[in-house]
Parts: sequence; structure tokens; C-alpha cells
Amino acid sequence: MSLLTAPATQELLERFNQIRQRTETICAPLEPEDTVVQPIVDVSPPKWHMAHTSWFFETLILQPYLPSYKIFHPQFAYLFNSYYNSLGSRVLRHQRSTITRPPLREVLAYRQHVNEHMNRLLQELPEEKVAELLPIFELGLQHEQQHQELLITDIKYILGTNPTLPAYLPRPAQQRQSAATPAQFMEVPGGKYKIGYQGSGFCFDNELGVHEVYLEDFETMNRLVTNGEYLAFMQDGGYTDFRHWLDEGFAMVKEQQLQAPLYWVQQDGEWHRFTLHGLEKVDLNEPVCHISFYEADAFANWSGKRLLTEFEWEAATQVYPPQKGNFVESEQLEPLAANPQAEGVQQLFGDLWEWTYSAYHPYPGFSKAPGPVGEYNGKFMINQMVLRGGSCATPSNHIRTTYRNFFHPDKRWQYTGIRLAAKK
Amino acid sequence: MSLLTAPATQELLERFNQIRQRTETICAPLEPEDTVVQPIVDVSPPKWHMAHTSWFFETLILQPYLPSYKIFHPQFAYLFNSYYNSLGSRVLRHQRSTITRPPLREVLAYRQHVNEHMNRLLQELPEEKVAELLPIFELGLQHEQQHQELLITDIKYILGTNPTLPAYLPRPAQQRQSAATPAQFMEVPGGKYKIGYQGSGFCFDNELGVHEVYLEDFETMNRLVTNGEYLAFMQDGGYTDFRHWLDEGFAMVKEQQLQAPLYWVQQDGEWHRFTLHGLEKVDLNEPVCHISFYEADAFANWSGKRLLTEFEWEAATQVYPPQKGNFVESEQLEPLAANPQAEGVQQLFGDLWEWTYSAYHPYPGFSKAPGPVGEYNGKFMINQMVLRGGSCATPSNHIRTTYRNFFHPDKRWQYTGIRLAAKK
Amino acid sequence: MSLLTAPATQELLERFNQIRQRTETICAPLEPEDTVVQPIVDVSPPKWHMAHTSWFFETLILQPYLPSYKIFHPQFAYLFNSYYNSLGSRVLRHQRSTITRPPLREVLAYRQHVNEHMNRLLQELPEEKVAELLPIFELGLQHEQQHQELLITDIKYILGTNPTLPAYLPRPAQQRQSAATPAQFMEVPGGKYKIGYQGSGFCFDNELGVHEVYLEDFETMNRLVTNGEYLAFMQDGGYTDFRHWLDEGFAMVKEQQLQAPLYWVQQDGEWHRFTLHGLEKVDLNEPVCHISFYEADAFANWSGKRLLTEFEWEAATQVYPPQKGNFVESEQLEPLAANPQAEGVQQLFGDLWEWTYSAYHPYPGFSKAPGPVGEYNGKFMINQMVLRGGSCATPSNHIRTTYRNFFHPDKRWQYTGIRLAAKK
Amino acid sequence: MSLLTAPATQELLERFNQIRQRTETICAPLEPEDTVVQPIVDVSPPKWHMAHTSWFFETLILQPYLPSYKIFHPQFAYLFNSYYNSLGSRVLRHQRSTITRPPLREVLAYRQHVNEHMNRLLQELPEEKVAELLPIFELGLQHEQQHQELLITDIKYILGTNPTLPAYLPRPAQQRQSAATPAQFMEVPGGKYKIGYQGSGFCFDNELGVHEVYLEDFETMNRLVTNGEYLAFMQDGGYTDFRHWLDEGFAMVKEQQLQAPLYWVQQDGEWHRFTLHGLEKVDLNEPVCHISFYEADAFANWSGKRLLTEFEWEAATQVYPPQKGNFVESEQLEPLAANPQAEGVQQLFGDLWEWTYSAYHPYPGFSKAPGPVGEYNGKFMINQMVLRGGSCATPSNHIRTTYRNFFHPDKRWQYTGIRLAAKK
Repeated sequence: MSLLTAPATQELLERFNQIRQRTETICAPLEPEDTVVQPIVDVSPPKWHMAHTSWFFETLILQPYLPSYKIFHPQFAYLFNSYYNSLGSRVLRHQRSTITRPPLREVLAYRQHVNEHMNRLLQELPEEKVAELLPIFELGLQHEQQHQELLITDIKYILGTNPTLPAYLPRPAQQRQSAATPAQFMEVPGGKYKIGYQGSGFCFDNELGVHEVYLEDFETMNRLVTNGEYLAFMQDGGYTDFRHWLDEGFAMVKEQQLQAPLYWVQQDGEWHRFTLHGLEKVDLNEPVCHISFYEADAFANWSGKRLLTEFEWEAATQVYPPQKGNFVESEQLEPLAANPQAEGVQQLFGDLWEWTYSAYHPYPGFSKAPGPVGEYNGKFMINQMVLRGGSCATPSNHIRTTYRNFFHPDKRWQYTGIRLAAKK
Repeated sequence: MSLLTAPATQELLERFNQIRQRTETICAPLEPEDTVVQPIVDVSPPKWHMAHTSWFFETLILQPYLPSYKIFHPQFAYLFNSYYNSLGSRVLRHQRSTITRPPLREVLAYRQHVNEHMNRLLQELPEEKVAELLPIFELGLQHEQQHQELLITDIKYILGTNPTLPAYLPRPAQQRQSAATPAQFMEVPGGKYKIGYQGSGFCFDNELGVHEVYLEDFETMNRLVTNGEYLAFMQDGGYTDFRHWLDEGFAMVKEQQLQAPLYWVQQDGEWHRFTLHGLEKVDLNEPVCHISFYEADAFANWSGKRLLTEFEWEAATQVYPPQKGNFVESEQLEPLAANPQAEGVQQLFGDLWEWTYSAYHPYPGFSKAPGPVGEYNGKFMINQMVLRGGSCATPSNHIRTTYRNFFHPDKRWQYTGIRLAAKK
Repeated sequence: MSLLTAPATQELLERFNQIRQRTETICAPLEPEDTVVQPIVDVSPPKWHMAHTSWFFETLILQPYLPSYKIFHPQFAYLFNSYYNSLGSRVLRHQRSTITRPPLREVLAYRQHVNEHMNRLLQELPEEKVAELLPIFELGLQHEQQHQELLITDIKYILGTNPTLPAYLPRPAQQRQSAATPAQFMEVPGGKYKIGYQGSGFCFDNELGVHEVYLEDFETMNRLVTNGEYLAFMQDGGYTDFRHWLDEGFAMVKEQQLQAPLYWVQQDGEWHRFTLHGLEKVDLNEPVCHISFYEADAFANWSGKRLLTEFEWEAATQVYPPQKGNFVESEQLEPLAANPQAEGVQQLFGDLWEWTYSAYHPYPGFSKAPGPVGEYNGKFMINQMVLRGGSCATPSNHIRTTYRNFFHPDKRWQYTGIRLAAKK
Repeated sequence: MSLLTAPATQELLERFNQIRQRTETICAPLEPEDTVVQPIVDVSPPKWHMAHTSWFFETLILQPYLPSYKIFHPQFAYLFNSYYNSLGSRVLRHQRSTITRPPLREVLAYRQHVNEHMNRLLQELPEEKVAELLPIFELGLQHEQQHQELLITDIKYILGTNPTLPAYLPRPAQQRQSAATPAQFMEVPGGKYKIGYQGSGFCFDNELGVHEVYLEDFETMNRLVTNGEYLAFMQDGGYTDFRHWLDEGFAMVKEQQLQAPLYWVQQDGEWHRFTLHGLEKVDLNEPVCHISFYEADAFANWSGKRLLTEFEWEAATQVYPPQKGNFVESEQLEPLAANPQAEGVQQLFGDLWEWTYSAYHPYPGFSKAPGPVGEYNGKFMINQMVLRGGSCATPSNHIRTTYRNFFHPDKRWQYTGIRLAAKK
């Protein structure tokens, strides 16, 4: 993670409190019962997210930097460590839902305890010490923002697993437009492109190892693939014709009897989808969402196109700088239809994470940090695919054109979508 | 289920309200978060128990007998049916924990709604109609009592799965005695014994098909096997010597690496056990508890004895009528040491369900009732073993000497214990 | 296992050689490739059966009794021990099919080696020593006969798993009759019956613990249930109506999508079944075969009857002594239709093992022998159901009215069938 | 797959017969019993390999091109199709070992039948038709060579699973040298490199989509990592220190309790390994073999180095053209120690396939052929890692510097090894 120039303490405090508060705002509409379950192993209980992000600050900042600090509860390190082997043993991931205690209200007290001491620490710490602490402090905030996005996707899964399909929040009053935007393929010239984060702000270690790649000419779609386009694939027998699919993808389709994106249900002969605002009719102009890499790739094959690589995606943003996207601040919490009036390449930022045909591997000069921070990214660099651009659940100040998200190719519960490249 | 003479309506109402209230009392000490989880498939979420027992009254009594009745929620039948194929499709057992909605408070409202309408029904129904309704009404109460016992065992498992091992309630103030009672083997003469329920009160259909069995002379232990005796088995390598074990039992021991009863943990070199009152040191005079049939049988083999059959157990109660036992009303919620002063055969009732070496099969004249009630017992008559006598979690007015409880031989989360018979 | 009066050495030798030869005769029609596979865990490779039965004689007789004996191969004990913990570690059951070496021809050489030394031993051993050795010698022969039956059922499964459905042997020239025999229910009077082996010949330890049981009057079907009767059950939706089934049985039906007995396939709209003589049209008069206990019980429920208990079955043979049955010597290797001319109760012996509604549990006075022989039967006395009467794959001199066979209730690859009792 | 200039028919025939004969030579030392088993799902029965490669010629050449051709057996297409959905249904991969028929000798007859008809076809076909047929004919030969390598690795696994650890063949008489070659890191200058097959001979479709990549300067090890170097990693606790491992790799290590490469066993305190010549002491100078990608990567991390990417590997061969390698023709069937006298970069060809840190993905311009040949490579382009350079089990005329082999990162039964790049 890159170095940062030291902002004033007051600014740090404000950002800290704002981001921490945001986590609680996300969980406010939930029942305590919603915060403890784990319907699939990928989903963590919201209560766990809230405690885990606090444990991060407690363990990596309060304990080493605030001498008087007393840990809130001796067993919370065991309960709320996620995957840091360096930081001791822990509840195994698939058992997170068996932990009913501490209850939500005690987790909230834990958050407040950590917040108060973080505020005290930042106010009391000499400025030169603040500078030393800054990288891990910044990582803690970025980490909390990542969990905010996971909270939203996990809440969606938890509510969507309930047969009653309860809404999380109503659609925001100010309604979005939905209109058709014709697909176009926009030129990106070949040549050498510089890949990776070169700025002076924060970035993750997996964006470093800045290096050049040589690309051939290619074309990128001007927007995300829509529900209407995807429905045409479905209606053309897309889920039953093996020729479009990677072999492991088709095996998954058969085993799980997939016929449509996650959250799609047919009612009275019409496709609906569960959204965080309840069940809605599928809007043909909106981007297709909650599909696996396998489905994205099969759709691309069916349409005679292909997915971009992560390098092509990053190069495209150098040619077509991303516009303001539909991020979590819009409170839509679902992707929106593209804008027919807009020019250039839309939706590179926000709406949906875009599957690329690039494995999540280290950049040439990548190296892991020593200590627990070294476990943040590097050890996951196998069997996962890179996604780019952020989604409607991502905080807008959390994204970069160099940001590399990653999931296994079978995962569907994230806000994932498709952008095509024209085959040459 | 046998016929009943009609008690006065007022009496019925009182029993109904008392038993229904008792379920809520059991759940009162829980956090909402405790009521939604299912750490193993055998355990149901307490919230589910509370709703399921209400669904039973709603579906089998209110809907058919109260014409004006409107069901509380159209999806609750799907959510809270347990295993009645006759009553439609349902949430699969192992998915009960993914249902966070309705939350606890709505389930409590559901209970109140059902209670109010049950009260109205009983008050308004003509007396001859009450008689017609009586068998299913009585079954509903017995059913709720069975779930009360399951609630206690499931709550114990849920709390015991939390690494913080929270207590459910403190030990009741009035303390129990613990002293050693020497083991004795008491004669039961051979001959023909009549098996099954012959009274005029309520019984389950699996107690009917009254029939005679011929038994040889045998001897029964005068009390339950103690923790001290079981510890001797453990210390003698009981869990590692295949010769004591049924083959499938030893396979389970190796696969799950069993070394002690469920809930036993070693701390600072001493055995403790998780109880509903928190972690306690193992008391050597108390009955050993939470063991599988396999462990009970292995212990019996190790000690040169054997388990009783269910017929021997029932015959023993004809020779040594059970004394007042340690049932749920004592609020101990754990088995107590036998009484050194008592004569005859102790602990036949209460403390712990006693594993017998009898498969849970139909009695000779057994027949299933038509309709959903026919699914109550008969379809489970395979691969399970009979347990007798009730436990510290059983309501005292719920037990009979002819009562047949049944679990698979590997189950350990119930209040199960061991009584030996002398080998001939 | 009971004591035996000593037969002359020459007689012993002849029986030994005859039984041993029979095993090789059974395997003669196989390809070497057939002898190494294990399509399901229940089935053992024929090569393994041949070696295992030899290992039994080598380990329990030659090693202790023939001082000069040198074991054939130091690793065979590891390779060919079945389940005797007392006799050291072994290849796990489910890995038997990964053992390609020794090849068949070396196993045959092993058999010959053991046979030669057994012959030498019996000829050289002083008569008083022969008497000492007799029980384990007899057990070895009975054991080999049990494996001969398993060989036939396992060969059937192995060949039937090949998509080419190769025949094992042609139907014997002399053809069987097939005609309808009307079902009758024959009276067996209630009262006390003596159960268990009381003779002076060989029996297994699980037949001992002779004891009395008291039975009510009942009626037994005069023959086995036919394919025609079972087909009526199938055509009446037997496999889809949960009301006939034990809960675990119906779960198996749904999971495995069962629709007919094992080996039944529909071709051109007609039911055929794979037999050891190849694919044949289902004969409606022949007994239905290769059904699980669950199917037997569901059929009984559907027909308003029930299965016998093992005690009722044994009592029935005291009232209706079994006639000469269709055993392995007939070389039919499939069950035959009952005889319309015959009186009384037919097919008690031979044709098919009959599922009883009795768990395989110890008789009252049962005790395990010390040493490895104690592992023969006792440790399997859980979760299995008793079958009685032998089958078309059983040697005729291997059966007794007190013989208790046992399998888990879901097993279908044995020659299993149904006899009904009339419900009272 | 690329076009070929037409060789004379006689030459084609000779190559065909030679390659086909080679498959039978590989299987000659086996027992029939060895040819039918499948100890893990990755391994196919040798009998299946022999039939499958014949089915390929029968289905894709004889049936379409030889009008008079009669298929050998109507069910062989079902039995011996591997994964071609376009060519109908088939035995599922994990059930290949349940197919005992046809036995080996009938498979050999099938091979001969196909060979005779292929010879007739080539002799009779007009020259212009031969040209049309050439691509699929060439693919059939290459396909058979790939299965020859799989045969050797599968035979090794099958024999190595036998507790008796039988040798396949003795070590060839002419003994290999073993001496230490110091590790050196050799410069490869950065810049643009052309990747993919540009020749006029045969190549697979996955080598096409020739394109340029831009590489930074790097250094490659001059030989493969040795057993001695790997042993140092093991002795330094390599298998227990999570810091060296990818998370999924460390999970595999813990679950399978890995402590050493596949086939390593400790005897009398010394490491031995099972080879195709039987159990041998580990030679510290020989390359470490049979390790997964996870182990290769962990070793690289431990040594402060990294693996090459597939592009770096191919670039290295442009700088250091590979020397004659230890291929299958040496009959060593195991990797050999590097040559201390040799200069430059050794072992790029032969000895062991080298894991690269590159996912097996399509090259930029990759496109699948229409029809069944399109299923050859493309549908596997997910979750697998590229290996380069061929092994001691590869035919020497089957390898190219552009050849891309691929396996899942957990696989260990192939001849896989490690080459390091110096970290920058």
C-alpha cells in the first residue's frame, strides 16, 4: 500500500467518524435476527462484519499505539479475525453463523468503544506518530469501505433467501430514467500502456508493480450489457447449449440447474428480480446483474464477442476517462439504465463490477508486505478473476481505474455485470 | 392416539394457556439472535419452534373449526410446517436457519393471535363439538410439550456452540445434594409382561398395539451410571479400544475424534462440562449425560454388563414403580446425583432419557391414523433406538412408563444417559 | 459358534476341497478385468473375495497350527483383512478396487498354496489336535460359503454396471415353469415359541442365546410377492405416494429417483431386468427381487399388510417346515415362480432372502467370543434389518431356519424379496 | 490447429503405425487388472486410453471418410468418448473404472481393427482427399501422443497406489550421472517478444493468436530446482508456515496433511520415492518432481524468488534455445540431474513440465474451430495454470517452445517441476 501525505488530524477524524457511522447506517434497517445468519459460506453475518471491522482497528492500531488501551473482550479476537493467520486462531469461515453472542447491541457497544478510543488516540498522538500510523489507519478505512459493500451484497442475499422476500429500503423518491441506448463498439488503439497505480494517494498493494503491457487494437462496448440483451441469450437456449460455455461453467449450470441470473424469478409468465427494494419486474434497459464469470463468458461467446482483459479495461479508461458513476451515494442500490444522450463509453465506473478475462495474479514487481498486512491480498492470487470499475454498492471515493477486485468465476452474489469487446 | 373423557372447557383453557405460556417463558432469557440459528441440522431455531407449534393449532384446529378464522400470514404454512407431507411443501429442515423473517417479535405476535383465537374457539364451541375436537387439541398440547423439551436441548446446543459459553439461567438457589450411591443390581423376575398403554388418558399411537412379551429373569441397576463411573471407562482407554464398540460407533469415534461426552472440556487438567448454568466442574456423583447410544453400549460392554431392552425397562417399572423424578419443574435443567438413602430402583423417571437396546419399531397391532396425524410417529420407525423415562427437561405431566422416545444411535444433544442390566 | 462332533479327517478334507473349489468355479466365467473393480462400496472385487477367504485360513489356522508354515506374501494380511481390528491394519473397504496387484493369477496361486498346506495340515495333525481346530476350521468353511453368495451378488452388480450388460452364464437348459399361484394367508397360532439354534451342528453366534418369545396369532403369505403384484404397486404410483413409506425410505426414493427394483429397465415400453443370464423380460409370476427394506415395507403398507418379524418367520417354519428350496445348486441364479400345485407355505427356503421388520440385535444371552472371532457378527448389531431363509445364491447346506442374515434397510444388491403377514 | 504441407502417403502411414504401436508398447508390461482401475478421478484406466484414442480415429476419420466402414461395436462411442458434447452422451469421467467390458484383449482387437482400416483408407484415398483429411489425421496422432504421456503418469499412479509398490520396468542399463550443478540466474533482457506458434508445422489452436507482449528485464534459473533444494524447504518447516503459501494451497496442505511431494515415503529415517522402476532413495541432485503449483509457488516464496510467467518462459527460449532434453525416448521415465558441464539454461525441454504463474487463458485472437474439434482446448480455459517444456514422459517430437500444457494448481500426478525467476 502506497505512502500518503499527512492530512490534518481533524480531517482524519472526520473521515474516520463518517466512514464508521456509515457502516451503522447500512445496518440500521435490519432486524437483529438478520444480522446473525450465513445462508451460504460466501455471505458473512452483518453482525460479524460490524465487529470484524472494529477488531481491525483494535488489533492493528489501538493495541500497538494506545498504551492505556484495554481490549473490549478477550475472545473477540478469536471471534472476529477473518483470515489473518499471523493474528492467531479464529472461528472458521463457515461457522460464523453459529455465533449468536455477542448480540447485535453488544457489537454496537464494541464499535462505540473502539470509536471513542480511536478518537482519543488521534487527538492525543503527537503529529510525527500520526504519520507513522497513517498507512495502517488508511488501510483500516479502506477495509471498512470494502466491508460496507460486502454488507450490502450480503444483506441482499440474506433478505433474498427469505421466502417472504422482504425489502431492505424503498426505492429513493427521485426516480431513475429507463430508456434504450444502442450498443456501439468504440476503438481503443493498440500499443504500450502503463498498468497499475502511479498516483500519490492510497492504493492497494495488488495495484503496484506498475508495468507496461503491449496491447493490440481492440474495441469496447459503449455501455454494460442489458437485461434485454441477456434475455435474448436465455430465450435462444443460452443455458442449454454447451457450445457457449467453459466446461466447468456448463457443469455448474447443469448441477445447479441455472436458467437465469441470481434473484430472477418468473411470476405469471413474466421475469421479475429481487432487489433491495423488493421484487420488481425486470427492466430490459437496465444492465444485467448478479451473473457469474461463466455466464458473462457464455453470453460473450453467444454474441460473437468476448470479454475485455483487465489490461484492456484499464487502457480503455485511459482513452475514455470514466464519468461520474452510479455509486452507493445515489442510494439506488441497483444498477441503472445507460444514458442514451451520453457520448463515449459509459458505466466504466459504478453500476456493476465488470468481469474481465484476466486471472487475479501478481503484477510483475508485486511483493507482499511483512506482517499481517501481507495477508491482505497476495495469498488470494489464484483461481479468481479480476473485476473492474466498482458498483452501485461501492462508495464513490473508494474506486480507482487501477482498482482490482476479484472473485471466483462461479460467484453470483456480488453486483457483477458484462461489458463486451469486439473480437478481432 | 387414545380417546379421552371430556374435561370441562374451563379446564381445557387453563391447560392450553399454561402450556402455551410455558413455551414463551422458556425463550424469555434468549437474545433475538439466539432464536434464529441452527448450528447442526438436528437443532431447530427457537423462533421456529415457537412458530411451528402455533402453526399446528392454526392448521389442524383453527382453520377447520373456526369458520371466521383468517390465517395470520399466507406463507407461514410453508415456513413452519415440519415434516407433514400431507400439509404441503415446506422449508427443508437444514435450511431453517436461513429464515430471519418473521423476526422474533412477529412470531410472538403470531403466537398471541393463535392463542386469542383458540380461546375464543373453546369458549364459543358447543360442547359436543369440543368432544370431537378433543383428540387433536390434546395432541397439540402434547406436541407443544415435546417441543418445549426440544427447545431446552436446542438452546443448550446453541449457547454451547458460542465460544463464550454463555449461561442460560443461573442454578436455582436451593442447591442439590451430591453424594455417592453404590451401584446395585435389582432382580426383575422373568415371565409374561403386558407392554403398551392400557390407561384411559392420552397416549401416542406408538404406545398402542398393547401386547405381551415373554422375558427371562434379569437384573437392573438401581440408578443411572455416574460421571465417575464413565470417567473410569475413559481413563481405561474406553474411546480407543475397538473391542467395546459397535463398528459404526467406533467409526464415529474415530471420525469425530470423540474422547468424552458432548459438552465436556478439559481446563487446567480437570474435566468441566457446559451446562445451562455455564461451565461447571464435572461432579462424579451425577449421572453421565449427553452420550450417544454407541457410547452407552460401549460403556456397558466395557463394564461386563449390557443395556436393557425397552421391554425390560417397562417391566422393571411394573416391579419398581418410578418415584417422583427430577423433571423440568425443578428448574435444575441438569440431572442430579441419585439419593443414597433411597431404596429400590431410582431415576427411572426424570434426570435422563435412558437408551435401550431396542429399535424403534411398531408394536404388533400398530396402525397409522389417516390424514396428517398419521405422519406423527409411524414414518420414523427405522434406524432409531428407543429411550425411556423422560429427563430433567421433560414436563412431569408429559411422561408415562409406556412413553417411547426415539433418536438415532449417534445423537448426543438430548439429555441421554445409561442404565445397565446385569448380563446373564 | 457351537461345538461340533468330530467327523473323520477324510470327510473334512473332502468338504474343504469341495468348498474351496466351488469358489474358483464361481469366478471361472469372469475376465481378469471383472475381478478387480468395486462399482459401489458394498461390492468387493471378486479377486479380493478369493484372496480374503484364503487369508482367513492362513491367518487363523495355518499360522497357529502348522509350525513350518511360511506365509505366502508378507503384505497379504494388510491387503486381504476385511474388518478384523484384532488382526492389524488393513486396506480401507472403499479402496479395495485400487489394488490391482496381486493379479488374479497370483491370487489363484495363493489359493493353491493355502489349499495344499491345509491338506497337509489335516493329514498330518494328530486327531486330538483336529478336534481343537475344528470350530475355527468349520467357521472358515461357513465363511467361504458366505463369500460365495457375496461373489454371485457382486458379480451381478459388476456385470450389470457395464453398459453392455454382459451375461455371466446362459440359463441352464432345463427350463423352469412359470405359472400363477394365488396368494393365501396361512394361520400361525400365537403362544410361546423357542427362538435360536438348539441343534448340535454348526451355527453362528448370533443364533445363540436361545430364548422364548410370546407371539399373538398371525397369518403368513403362502409364497413370495411376485413381480406382477409389485408392478401393480408401481402402476398405482407406489414410488410417488409418501403415505406408504418410512420417511428415510421416501427420502432415498427421491434422492436416487427410484422408480422400480434394482436392475429393472424399460425397453420399448416393456419392463426388463438384468439377470445373470443377460437382459430378460420381467416374468410376472416370479418373485420380485433386489428391493430394499424400504420398498418391501412400502409395498406391504400399500397392500394393507405388513412384513413378518424375524420371530414370526422362525415360528412359521416351526408350523410349516420349509420344503427343498431353489438354492445355488439349481444353477438358476435367479428366483423362480412358486408352484401352483404345492400346499402350505412355499419358498421359505431359497429363492430370496426375506426382509423382516426386526432389527439385527443380540438375542438376550448373546455374548461375543474372545479374540478375532468375536468380531465376526456382534459388532454389526445396529442399524441393520434381519433377513431369513436364504436365496438362489445360497449353498443349500448353508441355511437353517434359525439363520440370521442382515443388511442395512437401503441395500438392494442382494437377492432380497417380500413375504407379507396379514395385519390383525 | 494450423495447416500442414502434405507429406507422402507412405510417410503418413509409417508415422501412424509407429505412434499407434507405441501406445501398445507402453501398456505391454501391465497386467489386465492394471488396465481397468481409476484410483483418483484424474487417472483414467489404461484400457480406456487405448480404446479412446482408437475411437477418435474411428469417429472423426473412418466413419466420415471410409464409406464401407462398419463401426466395431455400437456402444463403444458411448464408452470411449471423453468429453465431446458434440459427439453424444458418454460414460461420466468418474465412472470409467466401473467398465470392465470390453476386456483388454477386446480393446486390442478394436485397436487392430481401426489400424487396419486406417491403413486401407490411407492407401486407397485419392491424394487430394488425403490433403483434406490431413488436419484431423494429424490431430489424431498428436492426441494419441498426449494420451501416451497420460498413460505413463496414470500407470505410475495406479502402480504407486498398490501397497506392494510394483515396478513398471527396470531402470535402463545405461546409468545416468548424478552430480551437483550450482544454481545460476541468467539474464533475459526486457522488451517486446512475439508469443505463439509462427511455424508451418502442426500446433494446437491454443498456441495461435500470435501476439506481442512487453516484458521487463528478468533472470531465469539455469536448471530445475533439485530434490536437495526442496528438502531444505521441507526441513525449514516449509509445509507448516502459512506465510509461503497461497491460501487455497495452504488449505490443501492442511486438509491432505501434505508433508512432501507425491510418491515420497520415509523408510528407516530416509526419504525414498516411488518411481516407475520401484522405490528408490531420493537423489538430491535430481529435479524435484510431482509437486502441485501450490508447492512450486510456496517453494519460490520461501526462497525469495518467484515462478516465471508463460511469456517469460517462452521469451527465455528465444534467448536460450532449448537443448536436447530427457524425453520419453531415453526410457528413463524419471527426471535426471542437470549437467554440471553444460552452459546456459538447461532442462527447458524434457525432464519436467514447469509450472508458470500464468492462467491458461485464450491468446488475444484465439478462436474455437467449429464442430467437435472446437471442444479440444478452448472450453478448459479457466482455473488451470500453464506448464511448459515437456517431460521425461513426453515424446520428443511432440514438444515445441510454444506448447501450452495446463493443469489445475492442485494436481501432482503429472511430471511437474520448478524453475525460478529472480525477483526484481
